[in-house]
Parts: sequence; C-alpha cells; structure tokens
Amino acid sequence: MTYCVGLLLDAGMVLLSDTRTNAGLDNISTYRKMFTFEEPGERVVVILTAGSLSVTQTTMARLQEAAEDTSPDAPPSIMTADTILQVASVVGDTLAAVSKDISSRMTQNADGATASMLVAGQRKGGEMRLFLIYPEGNFIEATADTPFLQIGEHKYGKPILDRVVRPETTLSDARKAVLLSMDSTLRSNLSVGMPLDLAVIEKDDCRVSSYRRIEAQDEGFQEMSNAWSQALRDSFQRIEI
Amino acid sequence: MTYCVGLLLDAGMVLLSDTRTNAGLDNISTYRKMFTFEEPGERVVVILTAGSLSVTQTTMARLQEAAEDTSPDAPPSIMTADTILQVASVVGDTLAAVSKDISSRMTQNADGATASMLVAGQRKGGEMRLFLIYPEGNFIEATADTPFLQIGEHKYGKPILDRVVRPETTLSDARKAVLLSMDSTLRSNLSVGMPLDLAVIEKDDCRVSSYRRIEAQDEGFQEMSNAWSQALRDSFQRIEI
Repeated sequence: MTYCVGLLLDAGMVLLSDTRTNAGLDNISTYRKMFTFEEPGERVVVILTAGSLSVTQTTMARLQEAAEDTSPDAPPSIMTADTILQVASVVGDTLAAVSKDISSRMTQNADGATASMLVAGQRKGGEMRLFLIYPEGNFIEATADTPFLQIGEHKYGKPILDRVVRPETTLSDARKAVLLSMDSTLRSNLSVGMPLDLAVIEKDDCRVSSYRRIEAQDEGFQEMSNAWSQALRDSFQRIEI
Repeated sequence: MTYCVGLLLDAGMVLLSDTRTNAGLDNISTYRKMFTFEEPGERVVVILTAGSLSVTQTTMARLQEAAEDTSPDAPPSIMTADTILQVASVVGDTLAAVSKDISSRMTQNADGATASMLVAGQRKGGEMRLFLIYPEGNFIEATADTPFLQIGEHKYGKPILDRVVRPETTLSDARKAVLLSMDSTLRSNLSVGMPLDLAVIEKDDCRVSSYRRIEAQDEGFQEMSNAWSQALRDSFQRIEI
C-alpha cells in the first residue's frame, strides 16, 4: 500500500509520499515513490506513484527514457510537451499501456496490475497544475474547490485535510497539514511506512523549491506527531456533549 | 454504506449506528440498523448491521422469529442460548445461511449479497461480550487490547478511537468518542447519514441502560461537531514543525 498527497495552493504545491512497498505483510521494502523531472526555472514536473511496483517502475522507466530522447522526431515527452495538461496525457497513456501489457501476461491477479499517479507541474509562463491519473490513463485535476488530491490509502488522512486545507493556506501550514495527514495514516495502516519524501514547489519557481527526506527517527516529525496526539486528547477532554 | 461502532469497556458497552441505506446515490433511505433483544435484568443483546439491506432484514426477521418460538424443541435462539458466545454463533449461522440463499438467486452482483454485524450482549452472571460477525458467519471478539469493533465505513472514524479509547475509558467519554468518530465519517462519506442510534449498556445491568436517537437537527450534536472542528483547527495552529 501507499499514501501520497498533493496540494495545489495559491502559493505553490506541496507533495508528500511514503516509501513502503509490500508483497504480503512478510515482504516489505522501501522504494521511492516521488520522481522529479526538471529544467530549473523553465519546467518542473513531480510524479507520485501508488499501486503495483512492477507497473509503476516500468512506467517511470519508459517516461524517463522518453524524456531523454533528444532526437528531432521524438514524440512529446514530459520534458518537451507544450503544456502540463499534455504532460498528464503522456503519463496517462504510458501508464495505461504498461498496465495493459503487464495484465495481459498474468493469468491470476490480473486486476492487481494497476497503478495511479499524481502529476504536479508548472512550466515558465504557465499555471501550476496538479492531476490524478487513473489506472486507465484518464485523469482529474485539482481546483480551488478541491485543492488536494490523494492516491493509495487516502481515508485515514482525509479528515484533517478537509478541515484545514484551502487555496489560501500558507506553504508552512500546508506542510504541517500533509505531515499530520500522513501521521494519521501511518498509525492506522501498517503498509504505509517511513521514510517520507516531502517536496514543495513555490509558485513560478519552476523547480523543486525544497525537498526533504524524513527518516523514521526524525526528531521534528516525532515531536510533531506526539504534540498532535496530545492536542487531540486535550481537545477531546474539553469538548462537551 | 453504513458506519457502526461498538466499545467494550470496564464500565459497560457503547454502541452507535447511522441509519442511511442507499442503492446508488439517487436512492437513499433511512433504515434502523440497531436491534435490541432483552429480558431486562436477565439478558440483553444488541445487534448492529452493515451490508446488503435484503440480507440484514431477512437475517434479523429470522432471528426475531426464532427468538419468539417458545416450543420446547426449538433450537437455541438469541433469547435462549446459554451464553453470549452461543448467541454470536446463532447470529453467524443465520447470517451465513441467508447470504448463501440470496447469493444463489443472483446472476449478477452475487458478491454484493453480504453483510456483517456487531453483536453485544450480557446475561445475568456472565461477562459482557462484543463480537464482529463476518459475512461467512465466523467472528472475532473485542478484548482489552482492542476494546472497539467497527463495521461498514470504518476508516475515517478510526484515528480518534485509536487515540482515546481504552478499557478504563468512562461511559461519558466513550459516548463522546463514538459520536466524534461518527462525525468524521459523516463529513467524509455521503452514504453514511443521520439520524443516529446510540445505546449504552452499563455493566451488569443486563438491559439497554440508555438509548437515544440523534436527529439531523439535534443541537447538542451540532454544537459538539462545531466545537470539535474548531478545536482541531486551533490545535493545528498551535502545532509547530
């Protein structure tokens, strides 16, 4: 399982993913689920992945290969597509093709060979955009009414986002919101695990403005997690029914 | 969809269910999902249901009919079984038989003809017990390590229970915890809806000690819901990262 979340705010985009991959509960590994494509100042695209590891790795490998193809007749890639909408199409088409390819080889569990992705990006002169790509390659986009998108184990961490995330939320508050959302998910689902990858893309920076890997023993994260638990318990005691 | 939760505490048991039933988003109805069987002071059993309405209604009708059968050769029923463990078996067997029966008539969506139930009860001289009955009729039991059980849409409301519910939690705090757990679920899943049914069985009372139906316009519930939202936002602002 996986939990990834992306926020599209007036001030920028905030992206967070876990790194746990498992094939059964007795086979747990750490894999990066956040992938960055950038030409700093010109174009930035960050992709977060959830689902079958063989599908996501193959998809990312094909996207990477296509992005490095500089031949004049190469089809539009993540690095050359005219718009971020077109980037989402390229990712969706590649994902759908890989899913179909892998599913066709499977005689059992063919339903399991799927994945979904978040694609966040901006190119110079364009708008920031955030898409959720479904396993079939179609997609939806974050808007002012719904400024966040989630993939994977999304339910435990949604209540806090529903309550505090608005387009005008500051990047600092947004970082806090996604980390608390992840904290609730980590507590409730063993198949979501540390370390975490946290990226912030400030508006019009067209690059990853800040990136941080948060390890299991990270003191700041532990303190925040404990303080939040304590604050919830204190609030609980104060509420009257 | 549905959300039902049961708590097994040192001081008693607290049970909460919503009442929304839907066949698609355009066909929403209100049905009671909490059913009480009692001989006050001698035996109390409360059943909460989630899943296919045709399965849960047929199961409850058969259980009710069996409980009213006073012939000397009648098999053990909810009202006559020697222990609450046996009550759980009777419920599980009936549920499994009804599910099988209804599934066998369906050519499409046979997977949908399932339901699960919570069974809470105590008989005079026995212990309080709380069971979760799976669609196949097998079951698990709440213990001191895991003092709550949920059926239906359980994820949104689990973080608050994880944080505050312990066996020594008071009945007053327990009522608050299940209502806040329901509040988070109501906000995030449209197919869980008011009114709510809330029952408390105090230890050794062997009856439903208090029962309350909470309507959508209930002022106390609205105030609690608003106060909790405000408390979460305040706590969020105070947390530092």
